[in-house]
Amino acid sequence: MKNDFSVSLKNLAGKIDDVIASSTFPCRVKPDYLGKAMQSYPANGGKRLRPVIMLWSAALAGGDTARLFPAAAALEIFHNWTLVHDDIIDDDDTRRGKPTAHIQLANAVNSSPQRRKKFGSDMAILAGDLMQGWAFELIDQSDIRPEVKLKAAAELRHYGYIRLVSGEAVDVAMSYCRAEDITEAELFEMQSGKTGALLHYAARAGWMLGREDAGAWDDAEAKALGEFGEKLALAFQMRDDYLGIFGNFEEFGKPIGSDLAEGKATVLLLHALKNLPDAGKERLKSLLYRECYTVDELEEVRRIFTQCCSTEYLLNKIAFMTHAAQECLAQLPDTPERKYLSDLADYLINREK
Amino acid sequence: MKNDFSVSLKNLAGKIDDVIASSTFPCRVKPDYLGKAMQSYPANGGKRLRPVIMLWSAALAGGDTARLFPAAAALEIFHNWTLVHDDIIDDDDTRRGKPTAHIQLANAVNSSPQRRKKFGSDMAILAGDLMQGWAFELIDQSDIRPEVKLKAAAELRHYGYIRLVSGEAVDVAMSYCRAEDITEAELFEMQSGKTGALLHYAARAGWMLGREDAGAWDDAEAKALGEFGEKLALAFQMRDDYLGIFGNFEEFGKPIGSDLAEGKATVLLLHALKNLPDAGKERLKSLLYRECYTVDELEEVRRIFTQCCSTEYLLNKIAFMTHAAQECLAQLPDTPERKYLSDLADYLINREK
Repeated sequence: MKNDFSVSLKNLAGKIDDVIASSTFPCRVKPDYLGKAMQSYPANGGKRLRPVIMLWSAALAGGDTARLFPAAAALEIFHNWTLVHDDIIDDDDTRRGKPTAHIQLANAVNSSPQRRKKFGSDMAILAGDLMQGWAFELIDQSDIRPEVKLKAAAELRHYGYIRLVSGEAVDVAMSYCRAEDITEAELFEMQSGKTGALLHYAARAGWMLGREDAGAWDDAEAKALGEFGEKLALAFQMRDDYLGIFGNFEEFGKPIGSDLAEGKATVLLLHALKNLPDAGKERLKSLLYRECYTVDELEEVRRIFTQCCSTEYLLNKIAFMTHAAQECLAQLPDTPERKYLSDLADYLINREK
Repeated sequence: MKNDFSVSLKNLAGKIDDVIASSTFPCRVKPDYLGKAMQSYPANGGKRLRPVIMLWSAALAGGDTARLFPAAAALEIFHNWTLVHDDIIDDDDTRRGKPTAHIQLANAVNSSPQRRKKFGSDMAILAGDLMQGWAFELIDQSDIRPEVKLKAAAELRHYGYIRLVSGEAVDVAMSYCRAEDITEAELFEMQSGKTGALLHYAARAGWMLGREDAGAWDDAEAKALGEFGEKLALAFQMRDDYLGIFGNFEEFGKPIGSDLAEGKATVLLLHALKNLPDAGKERLKSLLYRECYTVDELEEVRRIFTQCCSTEYLLNKIAFMTHAAQECLAQLPDTPERKYLSDLADYLINREK
């Protein structure tokens, strides 16, 4: 099927790549290696989901998407700065198979390993800072009226800073808590911010930009698209948590069990800790925070989750959230882009990797 | 003298404080302690030089300054996020006598000292990120036309991100180099970015905002004000370097000799290393990177700088740069605000602390 969502996605992603590659902002930065580090995340793959969702929404609203490529690219750069700072915070060494920004930047100086690590982390803080400026520069380069640019930037400050960064901060704080002290409502609120807010913005701002009217931010269609993006993100996140335990390592890419090793709060874990009898709860807790997991240990965890119905609970939640996301699309014009959004949601939630 | 620059400065600084204190942006952030950390630097003193310079420039251009208080406050918040991230990078524990953001935030969690330090630093990265959003939100809240807001934000991205953050990055990189490998031109270029760019922006954007015309950014007066700001910053920085060696500890506040302890590249040090005979150079180098300095050691360093005329060279540079800054003001309207800018420059460059 040639004319499905993936063709449009690939086509638009290419346009976004062109905008990013031809933007001069990073070339004006010194030292040169810092400018290069700013470009490395967006250059290193990624599906451009946020920009493409924005552009499909704009098309749904009857807009001329070609004029909005820079605003859509801005979303990719905004998303990527959060990854640069997240990777410092999580002390991750690789992303999409390549060294993270702070690891790359550590190589720019000759010094002791400890001093290089500090240098890499310091420079990566600054790279993420600069990318924030870059993102808003791209919004400004879109071919839209000044009032609409200002509204697009203002809402990105709400969704991208206040909601997303607050979500990230709460996630960091949660990693210092015991999972059993976290409620599912708190978990969803954190995830709504950390991963939902930018998808909400992408889908909703796309409609406004397509209409080229700041007031269209509050159109019923814009709100429905925002809801769609946020629910899709939550379903996607739960699917990620599912694959993190039940996935196939070869396909999923990241180590199965790494969430257990971190003791990460997930719907699965919170449900199991709440519903297991005391002995089972203690056994599950004793299986957290291990350096690595044998096949037998992983099988035991899976059995525990399934026996106390946490797996079923999670799968039901994913199905419910996906359905709720799809329902949001019902009130939108019946165009190919509505179908693309719907098919993308199905694809993301049924993926095995 | 009641009607001097300091009265106007204090009056306007109070208005800026009011805008910052009444801004709801940090109150929308979670966890609460992160929002509080965002407010702590601007609440903890500072002269509000950048906002006040912007407002005097606006008044020089005939503008209604009351409508520009948020845009001026934005500059203070922008300056303060750079301090939050700088303090992480420099691993500084105090600023203006209080704990730095990452030290404050480390106290928000119960954990081992090492994990608390990591938590504080991670949260302070996010606090600085959020303050970037806050700064641009304030520009947007000024009572000016959309085109002028967009221009003010665009130029802040150039001066505040590309020039300032590049300057900060080059400064970090320089701290991994030997001082003798750094030229004075490189040092000035770094300082023009790190400390000059935001004062350039403050003075120049003030004129544009006062005229409420994006095109006024390129007025001869705007350019002259930008030059004034940038030269003032360089003279101020050199005065700081002078006081760092020749100052009186009681008055200067920070330990005399701390620049030596860091081996920090300064005009004094670069000049001395270039002009001393080999034996003197080796002696001076042996006096760098010490944990602390005795009165005798400090006296010896001062004697070395003075004997090889580095002190005279620095004082001449300061006088020259100050004169050049003052000359920029000549082509501006002869109003009280022009006198304030001139008197502020004299005050800053003759200060003992």
